[in-house]
Amino acid sequence: MADLTHGLSTAELTELTNRSIAAKETAYCPYSKFRVGCAILCNDGTWITGGNVENASYPVGICAERTALVKAISEGKRGFRALGVATDVKPPSSPCGMCRQFIREFADLNMPIFMYDIDGGYEVMTLGQLLPMSFGPDSLPPPSEMAKLSKE
Amino acid sequence: MADLTHGLSTAELTELTNRSIAAKETAYCPYSKFRVGCAILCNDGTWITGGNVENASYPVGICAERTALVKAISEGKRGFRALGVATDVKPPSSPCGMCRQFIREFADLNMPIFMYDIDGGYEVMTLGQLLPMSFGPDSLPPPSEMAKLSKE
Amino acid sequence: MADLTHGLSTAELTELTNRSIAAKETAYCPYSKFRVGCAILCNDGTWITGGNVENASYPVGICAERTALVKAISEGKRGFRALGVATDVKPPSSPCGMCRQFIREFADLNMPIFMYDIDGGYEVMTLGQLLPMSFGPDSLPPPSEMAKLSKE
Amino acid sequence: MADLTHGLSTAELTELTNRSIAAKETAYCPYSKFRVGCAILCNDGTWITGGNVENASYPVGICAERTALVKAISEGKRGFRALGVATDVKPPSSPCGMCRQFIREFADLNMPIFMYDIDGGYEVMTLGQLLPMSFGPDSLPPPSEMAKLSKE
Ligand SMILES: [Zn+2]
Ligand SMILES: [Zn+2]
Ligand SMILES: [Zn+2]
Ligand SMILES: [Zn+2]
Repeated sequence: MADLTHGLSTAELTELTNRSIAAKETAYCPYSKFRVGCAILCNDGTWITGGNVENASYPVGICAERTALVKAISEGKRGFRALGVATDVKPPSSPCGMCRQFIREFADLNMPIFMYDIDGGYEVMTLGQLLPMSFGPDSLPPPSEMAKLSKE
Repeated sequence: MADLTHGLSTAELTELTNRSIAAKETAYCPYSKFRVGCAILCNDGTWITGGNVENASYPVGICAERTALVKAISEGKRGFRALGVATDVKPPSSPCGMCRQFIREFADLNMPIFMYDIDGGYEVMTLGQLLPMSFGPDSLPPPSEMAKLSKE
Repeated sequence: MADLTHGLSTAELTELTNRSIAAKETAYCPYSKFRVGCAILCNDGTWITGGNVENASYPVGICAERTALVKAISEGKRGFRALGVATDVKPPSSPCGMCRQFIREFADLNMPIFMYDIDGGYEVMTLGQLLPMSFGPDSLPPPSEMAKLSKE
Repeated sequence: MADLTHGLSTAELTELTNRSIAAKETAYCPYSKFRVGCAILCNDGTWITGGNVENASYPVGICAERTALVKAISEGKRGFRALGVATDVKPPSSPCGMCRQFIREFADLNMPIFMYDIDGGYEVMTLGQLLPMSFGPDSLPPPSEMAKLSKE
């Protein structure tokens, strides 16, 4: 039986690594010069990748993790086995809090997030470890129910 | 010679309409129930589409226009002939200011934006009309230059 | 009878100018070094100011205009006579699209926005001119209504 | 010697609780109806509060925690002893990932975050517990350095 790393075979982990690093080439980051690449392995076995896309108005930009995941969602993907994120620094960078929140909407808390440094070395944590006690879809009652609660 | 609408042939405009409307099906909008679809015609003749992707933390969501355009950019597309956005209301909705700003980074000011209502009717305005006197890449000097200016 | 500029007296316009420029000092912008100051004149005659507040994850930052306005709103202010925004460049910078959208929620379309350059010279446009055919509160039906429309 | 809870005296904790809950009244949340209040105790002993401020374009809204903190920063406050966040649900809601990231820029990792439920009961975690292995100001080299790294 093959060795698994957070549910990934050696071949899958190698592919996650390579695709995450390669995705840095797709970054549009003229302001920070901080290239980020992201690769996602979907439950159906397909791969989706993306890079960060910045804006002259910094708050309008989109990080690599959200680029890749919004692509996946808009293409109908649901259920994800792993996410990888690669940068040009060492130690590796983690997803920012906004991206952790974006991922939370769609991934299980035990989905592994592999963070690659400039040499290809990595650290790995689950989504639940990176965003403990998270605010997710189940935390938000519908407006009709909230309207009642806030009036009590 | 064929009639053109903002540079699009009749066949191209029909395809923009159909793809924008169809892209509503890819929306993930459990909070607003406000489906938005977007289609982009790239200079190379390819099409990219996307829907809005919401989040339990509302500010973390991504509108349809940004979904489609960030997909295009991360796939290496540069130069765009038209963008269409479709909703389920009438009169048609326009892109929000955040999306106009996101588009501004990558599109010419004369790129047409077609806004479709629930019946498929449309209004059209150029990016420059929707975001006059815009803040774009040329408005932002590099940090090294700004550091000098702010100290004067 | 006194001369008015977009409804402001000479003294009010001078104060808007001075407060907008002074607010640049409150900016936290270690990444862009692009200082922005904003001042708002409320209908009740009070003034609110703010600067841009950046973040290591660029998309998480908040522009000066939103800093000032969110302060005003959370302090119960409603109704605004003018907004000023000052930067260290020339010609003056305009509010980004995201800020225009944020302002749209709370200001009349004819509210003037004064944009100051590094020398204190300005250009002025109304919100409606900066964000034509805007997507505002009236554009968004409640979720219960949207749920019906999207199923038809 | 007085009992301390995460460095707060009983009187301070009571005040944090009361101010966080009272701040819910300042929320502008016509879309979610999900009122959130936030109070911050600054190192200088002053208090800053805020509520969530939503927008017809959901991603343009600002959460209560960011409202309060951006107010504090733009008023020159630096150094914070505690942050409280109150909602109308039970169990209590936590700050979303985007807010955790915004707080990260300005607060120590051991700053406590008190999360209040509708009955005033609370859970408390430090910023470092809510955003482990965070991406902060030290994680981001300046653009000039990144430009070199990405070319190697
Ligand atoms: Zn991010
Ligand atoms: Zn938008
Ligand atoms: Zn802005
Ligand atoms: Zn938040």
